Formats: sequence, structure tokens, C-alpha cells
Amino acid sequence: MFDGIKGVLIDLDGTILKGNQMIPYADEVIAYIRSLGKKIAFVSNRGNLSRRMCYERLEQFGIAATEKEIILSSTVTAQFLREHYPLCQVWTLGDEGLREELRHHQVQLAKIPEEADFLVITLHETMTYRDLDFAFRAVYHGARMIATNIDKMFPNENGNAIDVAGMVGAIEATTARKVELVLGKPSCFMVEAALRYLQVPPSQCLVIGDSTESDIRMGRMYGMKTVLVLTGNTKKSHLDTLRVKEHPDYVIDSIYDMIRLGEGECGERDVTGDCFTCRAVSLRK
Amino acid sequence: MFDGIKGVLIDLDGTILKGNQMIPYADEVIAYIRSLGKKIAFVSNRGNLSRRMCYERLEQFGIAATEKEIILSSTVTAQFLREHYPLCQVWTLGDEGLREELRHHQVQLAKIPEEADFLVITLHETMTYRDLDFAFRAVYHGARMIATNIDKMFPNENGNAIDVAGMVGAIEATTARKVELVLGKPSCFMVEAALRYLQVPPSQCLVIGDSTESDIRMGRMYGMKTVLVLTGNTKKSHLDTLRVKEHPDYVIDSIYDMIRLGEGECGERDVTGDCFTCRAVSLRK
Repeated sequence: MFDGIKGVLIDLDGTILKGNQMIPYADEVIAYIRSLGKKIAFVSNRGNLSRRMCYERLEQFGIAATEKEIILSSTVTAQFLREHYPLCQVWTLGDEGLREELRHHQVQLAKIPEEADFLVITLHETMTYRDLDFAFRAVYHGARMIATNIDKMFPNENGNAIDVAGMVGAIEATTARKVELVLGKPSCFMVEAALRYLQVPPSQCLVIGDSTESDIRMGRMYGMKTVLVLTGNTKKSHLDTLRVKEHPDYVIDSIYDMIRLGEGECGERDVTGDCFTCRAVSLRK
Repeated sequence: MFDGIKGVLIDLDGTILKGNQMIPYADEVIAYIRSLGKKIAFVSNRGNLSRRMCYERLEQFGIAATEKEIILSSTVTAQFLREHYPLCQVWTLGDEGLREELRHHQVQLAKIPEEADFLVITLHETMTYRDLDFAFRAVYHGARMIATNIDKMFPNENGNAIDVAGMVGAIEATTARKVELVLGKPSCFMVEAALRYLQVPPSQCLVIGDSTESDIRMGRMYGMKTVLVLTGNTKKSHLDTLRVKEHPDYVIDSIYDMIRLGEGECGERDVTGDCFTCRAVSLRK
């Protein structure tokens, strides 16, 4: 399973965390992967947290990580703006974590919406009408739109909650302008940030995630090995309807099964009727 | 005017061409700029032509150019896909020029829409319902969407004609998916392609174009000198309502006035009531 693998890209929400809880034994799996000498990058579409906040969130669950290992869509957005638009001024529609990350990367925040060159949109769980109106004003006065990601909904304690696509929709509908760049997975911007950190070629990487659209597609697009966990976005019942480009190499119930996979207790050739790991292998045929 | 300038980025449609005609004396202006020893890049949001087609179009008007000097949004899209998604398969909604450019850059074209990783959308003046339906099928089966540009309309012999945003709207409305990347001006992708060719820092560049949104914003975002011509998108009457981030350094009636500007017959300080050149200078105050 880990043969030839030097770098492991691990998703956060739905894969090792679920809301304010850790997926059972995720800390042990991270420690196990490290014990094999593999490099790890935590690659998440979270745009409303800064790396520092995310580091603290992982620490609180006893998951050992460094800030550099954490690649969030907020991180990648900030890096992108800093590198490609060094003179830009940015307004945000999103939680404080995004602004913290932009400031950390020396991206200039506009003083008033009217002066912004870009509106960066991410999840904004504390949003008010005023925030939305400020964002509207930025775009109405010419700001171009960037989104950290474009997820429609995410699971919380009430079922599904409106996500970034909702904020984007509000501004697009009222300004007749459109988002011109989405940074989150499965984009090349996230992959390249992870590979730059890992310093490992894609063919020696493994992706573990709960989303076929972002994690599995991202991995497959670069020839990485892919593992789908069923603790998040994707349910067993979805597996039959997956598009070919979203078929993972392995499907496991939970990240905990990585230890089983790693120890070769359930390998690629060990096909039985009710073994999802093996069923996944055949999906790729 | 040209003091300290080593590279000149020149827009095509509305600036040196208008439909199937050349803006009068544009060929002379290009020759004049070359005679000053400046490097030239032709930077156009045209995504439905290949470089080769564009080269022939310029040649037909006696405008001397090389293919390498021509930076189209089709060129930049093809380069982007080749560099960042080397394994991808692409379906297109657009005229043949786009496909020619993708093939030229060894981007793999999908055999059927269902297999595409990306749908690339550009202007498609020969579009039929069947083309639109193929594009829909690509996205319905999971292709991500990229647009060469996102212009809403362009002027032709009948007034304004529907542009790329219309094709994008048709697919977005029916698939609930969204374009995640727009390559055309004023994006960093176009600027960086031009600067890579010119090998000149932005502060030593001048942009000449007819669109405040794409040409002037692009130039200003990188600290380039900017010249707006009134032979295309922007009319005299628009000048009073320009956003600050779209104010050019100079406004001239036609690219032909570049010679006048270059020879210093009408300089930055030469303010008179009805001189648009000078009026523009004061816009930047």
C-alpha cells in the first residue's frame, strides 16, 4: 500500500475531523504514517481559517503537525495574490481566519470596499447583511471576484448548511460579474502548494480524503494513489454512481483502516464480496 | 512618452483592428514603435483564434509580427493546461482556433464529452445546438469549466453580439457547476505570458488598449503606463464615469495618435480644454 509512496496528502474535514470532533483514532493514523517515514501535508479547502487557527485545532486533538504542513485554500489564496498581484488591495467576505492569512502573507487589505481590486469570498459563518452589502459594494465598484472554494453545502449539526457558493451567488446575481478564479481543491494551485512543500513527485504521493470531487479527482488528475474514506461527504450508496474520473484506488470506512491497509491485511488483490477496499480497486479497472 | 519604456503591450480588436478592417495607420504605428527599438507583444482576449490564424490576420493588413509576439487567451489557456494539468483531457465549446492552439501545445482533446476533465469555453460564432449539448454533457459528466475570457458582448456589424459569457451562462444554468478559472485579461496569466516573452519588468512597460476593464486595469495593476484608445469599447462619454482603478495615463482618439504622443507634440503637461490626451493625465491625479 505505501510501497513507493513518499508523501501523503490528507484532507481535514470529513477525513480526520468532523465538526468539533476528531474521527476516532485519526491521531494514531497520523502517528503511524509518520512512523513509516512518510512526509505529510494536510490539504483542506477551508478558507475561513488561518494556518495558525488550524494548527491549534489539530493540536487540541493531539494531532502533531507543523504550520508548514497545513495547506488551506486561505493559505493558497494569500500566496497566489502575493505572488501574482503584488500591488492589489483586497476586500473579503468571510470569517476572520481568511484576513489573518492574507495579512500574514502581506496582502494589502482595502480600507473601504470601493477601493478593492479583488473581493475574496470564503465561508462566513458570522455573516450579517452589512457584510454582504460591503462585499456587493466592492464588486459594484469594480472589484474582481476570487473564491477560496465553491462548495455548495457542508454538513453541520443541523444537517446541511449553506457554503461559499451561496455567498458567491448573492454577489454574482446582483452585480452581473462572475468569479474568475477558484483556488480550492481539485485545482492545480492546491496540489502545487502541497507538492512544493512535500518536495515529492506526484507519482510518489497518496491522497486520503472524503470527497470524490475534490480529493480523489485531484489525486487522479496528477497520477497519485487515492484513498476514499466514508466518514464524510461520500456515502456507501454513492459508490455505484461515481464518475470514472472520481474512482479511488481504495475505499475504506474510516481513516483508521489506513493502518490495516498499510500493514497489508487487506491488499489490492484480496477481493471478497463485501470488502469495500477491494471493491474500490475493481472500480478502477 | 516612451522614456524608460522598453516593452509595449498592444491590444488587437478595437485598438489596431475593427472587425475585418485595420484601424487606419495602425501598421504605421507598429512600425514607428519598432523603429524606437521597443519590444512589442500583441495581447488579446481572443480565444477563438490560434496564434497562426492571428498572425495571418495581421499579415493580411501588412502588420509585421511574429507568432511569438502574439499572446491570445487561447494561447495562454493552452499553456496553462499543458503546464498545470499535463494529464488532462479537454472538450471545447468554441471555434476551431481554440482547438488548434490546444493541439499545438500538446493538450489532449477528449474523444467524447463524457471523458473530459475540462470544458474550455470561448467565443463560438459557428455554434449549433449540438455543440452546446456536447458541452453540457461534458460538464454534466464532471468536466470542470474554464473560460478563455468572460466578455458579455462584442461589437459586430449588427451592433452588439453575444459573447463568451452567454455560452458560460447556458452551461452554468443547466449544470449548477461554475467556471473556476478565467484566463483572459486583466488576469495575471495574460500579463505574465506577455512579460515572459518581453523579458522587461512591468515598470518599463506601456499598455495600449480600448478596454478600461481589461487593458487599463491590467496595466495599472502592475504599475505599467497605460494608454486608452477610443476606437473600440470605450466612448468619450464613458470617461466621466470611469472607476479610479480604470483611469489611464493617456486617452487618445486612435492608436495613430501614438506617433504624436511619442514625438512629444502633446505631452503630459500640455493641458488644454479640449485635448483628451491631457484630460486623461488629469484623471490620474
